[in-house]
Amino acid sequence: MSNPITPSSAEPVVTASDPIPVPVNRIPTPAATPPDILRCAYMEIVVTDLAASRKFYVDVLDLVVTEEDEHTVYLRSFEEFIHHNLVLRQGPVAAIAAFSYRVRSPEDLDRAVAFYTELGCRVERRAEGYVKGIGDSVRVEDPLGFPVEFFYDVEHVERLAWRYDLYTPGALVRLDHFNQVTPDVPRAVAHMEDLGFRVTEDIQDEAGTTYAAWMRRKPTVHDTAMTGGDGPRMHHVAFATHEKHNIIAICDKLGALRMSDVIERGPGRHGVSNAFYLYIRDPDGHRIEIYTQDYYTGDPDNPVVTWDVHDNQRRDWWGNAVVPSWYTDASLVLDLDGEPKPVVSRTDDSELEVTIGADGFSYTRKGDDAQGFKLGNTL
Amino acid sequence: MSNPITPSSAEPVVTASDPIPVPVNRIPTPAATPPDILRCAYMEIVVTDLAASRKFYVDVLDLVVTEEDEHTVYLRSFEEFIHHNLVLRQGPVAAIAAFSYRVRSPEDLDRAVAFYTELGCRVERRAEGYVKGIGDSVRVEDPLGFPVEFFYDVEHVERLAWRYDLYTPGALVRLDHFNQVTPDVPRAVAHMEDLGFRVTEDIQDEAGTTYAAWMRRKPTVHDTAMTGGDGPRMHHVAFATHEKHNIIAICDKLGALRMSDVIERGPGRHGVSNAFYLYIRDPDGHRIEIYTQDYYTGDPDNPVVTWDVHDNQRRDWWGNAVVPSWYTDASLVLDLDGEPKPVVSRTDDSELEVTIGADGFSYTRKGDDAQGFKLGNTL
Amino acid sequence: MSNPITPSSAEPVVTASDPIPVPVNRIPTPAATPPDILRCAYMEIVVTDLAASRKFYVDVLDLVVTEEDEHTVYLRSFEEFIHHNLVLRQGPVAAIAAFSYRVRSPEDLDRAVAFYTELGCRVERRAEGYVKGIGDSVRVEDPLGFPVEFFYDVEHVERLAWRYDLYTPGALVRLDHFNQVTPDVPRAVAHMEDLGFRVTEDIQDEAGTTYAAWMRRKPTVHDTAMTGGDGPRMHHVAFATHEKHNIIAICDKLGALRMSDVIERGPGRHGVSNAFYLYIRDPDGHRIEIYTQDYYTGDPDNPVVTWDVHDNQRRDWWGNAVVPSWYTDASLVLDLDGEPKPVVSRTDDSELEVTIGADGFSYTRKGDDAQGFKLGNTL
Amino acid sequence: MSNPITPSSAEPVVTASDPIPVPVNRIPTPAATPPDILRCAYMEIVVTDLAASRKFYVDVLDLVVTEEDEHTVYLRSFEEFIHHNLVLRQGPVAAIAAFSYRVRSPEDLDRAVAFYTELGCRVERRAEGYVKGIGDSVRVEDPLGFPVEFFYDVEHVERLAWRYDLYTPGALVRLDHFNQVTPDVPRAVAHMEDLGFRVTEDIQDEAGTTYAAWMRRKPTVHDTAMTGGDGPRMHHVAFATHEKHNIIAICDKLGALRMSDVIERGPGRHGVSNAFYLYIRDPDGHRIEIYTQDYYTGDPDNPVVTWDVHDNQRRDWWGNAVVPSWYTDASLVLDLDGEPKPVVSRTDDSELEVTIGADGFSYTRKGDDAQGFKLGNTL
Repeated sequence: MSNPITPSSAEPVVTASDPIPVPVNRIPTPAATPPDILRCAYMEIVVTDLAASRKFYVDVLDLVVTEEDEHTVYLRSFEEFIHHNLVLRQGPVAAIAAFSYRVRSPEDLDRAVAFYTELGCRVERRAEGYVKGIGDSVRVEDPLGFPVEFFYDVEHVERLAWRYDLYTPGALVRLDHFNQVTPDVPRAVAHMEDLGFRVTEDIQDEAGTTYAAWMRRKPTVHDTAMTGGDGPRMHHVAFATHEKHNIIAICDKLGALRMSDVIERGPGRHGVSNAFYLYIRDPDGHRIEIYTQDYYTGDPDNPVVTWDVHDNQRRDWWGNAVVPSWYTDASLVLDLDGEPKPVVSRTDDSELEVTIGADGFSYTRKGDDAQGFKLGNTL
Repeated sequence: MSNPITPSSAEPVVTASDPIPVPVNRIPTPAATPPDILRCAYMEIVVTDLAASRKFYVDVLDLVVTEEDEHTVYLRSFEEFIHHNLVLRQGPVAAIAAFSYRVRSPEDLDRAVAFYTELGCRVERRAEGYVKGIGDSVRVEDPLGFPVEFFYDVEHVERLAWRYDLYTPGALVRLDHFNQVTPDVPRAVAHMEDLGFRVTEDIQDEAGTTYAAWMRRKPTVHDTAMTGGDGPRMHHVAFATHEKHNIIAICDKLGALRMSDVIERGPGRHGVSNAFYLYIRDPDGHRIEIYTQDYYTGDPDNPVVTWDVHDNQRRDWWGNAVVPSWYTDASLVLDLDGEPKPVVSRTDDSELEVTIGADGFSYTRKGDDAQGFKLGNTL
Repeated sequence: MSNPITPSSAEPVVTASDPIPVPVNRIPTPAATPPDILRCAYMEIVVTDLAASRKFYVDVLDLVVTEEDEHTVYLRSFEEFIHHNLVLRQGPVAAIAAFSYRVRSPEDLDRAVAFYTELGCRVERRAEGYVKGIGDSVRVEDPLGFPVEFFYDVEHVERLAWRYDLYTPGALVRLDHFNQVTPDVPRAVAHMEDLGFRVTEDIQDEAGTTYAAWMRRKPTVHDTAMTGGDGPRMHHVAFATHEKHNIIAICDKLGALRMSDVIERGPGRHGVSNAFYLYIRDPDGHRIEIYTQDYYTGDPDNPVVTWDVHDNQRRDWWGNAVVPSWYTDASLVLDLDGEPKPVVSRTDDSELEVTIGADGFSYTRKGDDAQGFKLGNTL
Repeated sequence: MSNPITPSSAEPVVTASDPIPVPVNRIPTPAATPPDILRCAYMEIVVTDLAASRKFYVDVLDLVVTEEDEHTVYLRSFEEFIHHNLVLRQGPVAAIAAFSYRVRSPEDLDRAVAFYTELGCRVERRAEGYVKGIGDSVRVEDPLGFPVEFFYDVEHVERLAWRYDLYTPGALVRLDHFNQVTPDVPRAVAHMEDLGFRVTEDIQDEAGTTYAAWMRRKPTVHDTAMTGGDGPRMHHVAFATHEKHNIIAICDKLGALRMSDVIERGPGRHGVSNAFYLYIRDPDGHRIEIYTQDYYTGDPDNPVVTWDVHDNQRRDWWGNAVVPSWYTDASLVLDLDGEPKPVVSRTDDSELEVTIGADGFSYTRKGDDAQGFKLGNTL
């Protein structure tokens, strides 16, 4: 059946499946079955001043400390039952040590080893895990240059969902997604699809250049997104709140603490994902998104939404400006030896350049050249 | 690893897996592979006055009409992309014609046929579907007596998630779950587990009697629940809102329309599921829940939460009374010929009787006999 | 001009001025000019276990401690700039020591003395005040038997409105109103009008019996209300939150603390006042309302809204039951010697009796006898 | 008593009374008693395309039409009981015809005539009113050049507060305040204080230049504000919502209508007033603020809050940029003949210039030169 979809007034194009062209330089699809990934589970972040970072994530953002020692803090969100969603580790260079996914079964670790070994990637496995609370784990340097972890075995801790005596106005309740910067988005997407991810939304231009793509395992808009830019780098890690006022409460608290300058962008409503959002930067500049209310995407034929890069509502539904730092800044990622991965430049068009400033343009209504108060005249 | 879980101050017992005893009279587990169910997708409801029901669901609850004719109205929620989440069909007896689940692929319909045929159930299949917008469908009378449908093929329609020009204060954004009344909960749970469902929460007493169980396919607290009582009957169908104020807005609107007497219970916070809720009754007495903000349950080892039937916060976290009608009233279900199924009485203890009135008791704090303002003295 | 008002679908009758009949037994209007009252400012409450009460108001309700000593705790709300809105004082009998109003100028204290002296009331004045933080004060036993205080001079403290680092999910931001129980409502209203109050809403029956009246100085629905019943007693004192979710957060926290039995009624939407509300009881049974979002009433011709006592939406817009304790329980008040005032019985009809149970009836729609799920069958 | 106030971490200076220096060129204080103003009541706006403006205010912003004809639309907010809060009148030049205040009694019109006559202003009075729904009215060209109206007699209409069947997600419930642009703020403040207004907050620099001041009659942060700039012009008129999510809903709807370019600034949290805000521009460029949750200011010694013009959180508590148009654009005002008033340039320092761009600087923390992501590098 699957009749043509009624055109939406919201103008992005809706298609039945991933509209991103398969690149000629695609990473080969392994014959091995990929591991069955449940969800993004935690990120391991290297911070240069653990006390400052602990203050930011615990005293300001109110994440819950599961466990900590002199060098490391293990944090989780209020509705989490696994040991942690974020590991802060003291180190010499601010960077990302692991994007970690939980898989469906212990056997999926074997699958991960076979999958990445076939791809010629560096693969390590530690039965005792790399961090506290996690058992048998596989870490790889994936074909895109990112340090990716897979695990099943994990310590269960109290799910604090009902502990309203502990909630704060801006309580973070779930890890929602990662966001990665990579030079060639179609190449990255093709690989992630091999790994079992599905595209839910993307940004393209009329020439077919893809600027970003959102991909999911759990049935939300994403477990990770690929953002076009110099990479491999980590763009942000996102936590969810229950409601929009929780995100506003975080902004209000940052103002009261005279820390409003850590707010980089937002709060606002995304076009892509339809979620309400805020971007802040931690003491090392690592970017954190606070995010709420995207939509269910779990059906295999979930419609894919493609946004025009010139649509001024694609990244902020209200047309508010994206600050340049949001496009240019990102965190280094580490290889399995803990050394920063070299960054490769994007050669495709830059979203910043095609949409902001002298060379770029954006529209609120397709075909309407009118520029609003917020375009071109903000200092 | 999976260490013992820290006891929660919220007192329900958390276990690693379904703590419901397997009954001796269990329905045999078929050798056939069950269909891979994605999610509860829609309910077909027979109403005795279509105009009155249309007014209730469309003018009051603001569900979106996808399509309608003289005898039938097809309704969906704002974030839905399939043809409908609710079918209202004019008929002689108010009852439920189908609990319909979407499956992962067309092949899952073959699996459904084999699964239920092996169980000796009545099974029908229609390539053109039973209702508009849905293609090839299987309908069965399941071993518990419920009319259950499976389908994959469906017409796509506009997902109105971004259509804030159409939103109303109480906008319903997703179908969340069904709730079924059945005499023997452990027997029903064992069957639903055979069908691939997983228990997330349940209510038991110290003697091991199970009063209700919540089960999911999609990673929320449930796609359906089994509530102990005279059955097979339909207890309620639930739609989700984005935030709690949306549910309050529905109550406020019902007051403004002088329809507050359709509010049966709530709004309140559930203990089970941790969601914010409201129960209302449609013109035929079919019960609708409005629901928001439960939690992610998608990991295979998601902790199962067992509540004590005497815990006064299990069904309302604030200890507000459950009205007797909520326990006693439910909708008839139809067999595949459209005849009401006979109702079988529950023989296990009744939750109403063990918790309310002269024979029952409930506690706010275990071991504390104090009765609050709301217990025992409400007229 | 003042044309006839369009009848509201909400059915209460709207009139241009106070429709409450002046009683034959009215308290004489003094020739003296009454003090110019700004607003209800604080209540002094005697509690029998100061530690328990401190825990309730500070640790559970998150009121701010301005100052405290062994016998007394001074509390304020987040947006307050005067020393306190609530004084908890340890004493032998749970009761109310003062309903305290702030007046516009020091000279208004002289007016208060003259006004109540003319009425033959007991009047005291203390230049140093009765409690910390307050200077020159007048206390009277008013003609209705209540201990009432007037003051202008007060210590200013930090208004914590911007201190979002201190806010909790259920932050109380303002003292909103008092509510007093008195046997003869029209007599009380006539006196309060002499004191400068204006009626905003009231509840009457078809025979002209007045069951309750709301009266204001500041332009909200009330600074105090008179509730018909055995009195003089204190029905409740109310604090405001910013939004509805803040009130829900208080309920959720009470659940998490296994204190849900302190919730007496609500949360809900009032008919009268249109505010969102919750009633809880402190360790001595003193009743606290949490309240948000009534409307501006500051114009001298603000329409007065009269509700039918049989209108089931008058006290809860959603028609949810009022528990009997809410009608029958109230706190004793003290005379100026600190002795409990004798309670005089109401002789007019009782709202509880005319609306609940065998002798009473209520309607959702005038002229419609249909009883909903919530009427008559709640245990 | 009135002890020194504890310094707030929020850093603005709190003083017991208006800290704005009285200017040497002040407008003389009349000997006549000023009219007793209740509140800002409505604004009369001249629009150049009535159909376009009606669409904006009625179809997009959901204001309620009380009455309309070919040339004029009378609009009110949901909780209003007087005939209108906004008059849209078709005319040749987009401009403001009246800032209208309601006074306490008919006699206050005589006082208004005497007050402005003594000041040498042009004064007119029409017993039948200038617009529908309003009776006896006085209009003046005030000493600052603004067209100001005073009235008491007004037609009452249904207060729609309880009409939740009519509410939309972004329902505007009250007219909150005006905001006027004038070259010399201290001179304007001195005059408005003569008229009975009180300052609640202001923005100054270390040299004593005053950039803006907020003044109230009703006990909110303001009925009008004086913003330093070329004037007399109208900066904005503000309507209140109940909660923050209502303002977000307006933004979301504007996005859905592809009208996001009418969003000029926000949403955000103000430093001044502590309210949550949004600024939009109507089809003629008239600026509308949507506003919620400032604080009670009704006590005569309400603390005055003075913000440093260099404090980057003064106008947006989150430090988000103020767009230049917000400083530079404003609406013309009309004299009593309907002719636009000439605009006089501000000679004091400009807030835009001292805070934005090459010549300006702002701080998040006093004494901290660090520039955040949002300062200086937004394109």
